[in-house]
Amino acid sequence: MFVLGIDPGLSVTGYAVVEGGDPMRAVSAGVIRTDPSAPVADRLAELFADIEGVIAEHGPAEAAIEEVFVNQNRQTAAGVGRASGVAILAAARAGLGVAEYTPSAVKLAVAGYGDADKAQVQAMVARRLGLSAAPSPADAADACAVAICHIQSAGIRRAVEAAGR
Amino acid sequence: MFVLGIDPGLSVTGYAVVEGGDPMRAVSAGVIRTDPSAPVADRLAELFADIEGVIAEHGPAEAAIEEVFVNQNRQTAAGVGRASGVAILAAARAGLGVAEYTPSAVKLAVAGYGDADKAQVQAMVARRLGLSAAPSPADAADACAVAICHIQSAGIRRAVEAAGR
Repeated sequence: MFVLGIDPGLSVTGYAVVEGGDPMRAVSAGVIRTDPSAPVADRLAELFADIEGVIAEHGPAEAAIEEVFVNQNRQTAAGVGRASGVAILAAARAGLGVAEYTPSAVKLAVAGYGDADKAQVQAMVARRLGLSAAPSPADAADACAVAICHIQSAGIRRAVEAAGR
Repeated sequence: MFVLGIDPGLSVTGYAVVEGGDPMRAVSAGVIRTDPSAPVADRLAELFADIEGVIAEHGPAEAAIEEVFVNQNRQTAAGVGRASGVAILAAARAGLGVAEYTPSAVKLAVAGYGDADKAQVQAMVARRLGLSAAPSPADAADACAVAICHIQSAGIRRAVEAAGR
């Protein structure tokens, strides 16, 4: 199963399509940048169209989105909130199941503890994907991390359900 | 010219279509509610489709959106941010020009000062629209207020441009 991971932002949104398995496989990873000098409406429309394009190209079944950071500055938080709404909408309208994960849930799932630093998360992303280095730039690696978190959570959920039968 | 006013929220989004003139005229005003027990993705998809419906029905040329309140609680702020992103996107994809106004800019434009209370804003909304009372519920009246603010700002902009010629 392919999972779309999204680390949303108005200026830079990281995306990744990761296939479940052992090791997991990075099918695609990159960033969508929008022009900071363009009107917000145009930037959101471009972000939406680009996410639709990634979904159309790779056909992920589910989407995992990193939740809005609440401890960043207000301007950034407003941009992330809007970008996040648009990313969720693009996935929902394409018929994908959508799950959200907090940054600490992602770190816990990928690196084993919730306050892992960026370098530790990136090293574990590379390892889980069977790569010598994490995809770059960092937002693409973060998007891989949230996809990995979702695949792993789904695996745990299925194991718990199986054990309960 | 018809202007779409939007007071965005995940649970309740106020909308209004207001026609410029003296008095201005409320063509339509109401609220879009989404089910708090439904997944966020479904709620955002419903909000988007409903705003698309309002635009298709009334054909406004421009949209005015009230900016995210930054002083509300984090959960609400995240919902407003997402709803706001989806509302801006719906307007942009329909080809409308999109402008954003802070709550205090709206109050200043409609009621004459930036810290006017709800009742004062509603009374002035009613007066500007030639109505005996503001549209209800309150979110619909707030959406009228942001549309009125936009029409008035556009009028001032045109007057300044004309004076500069």
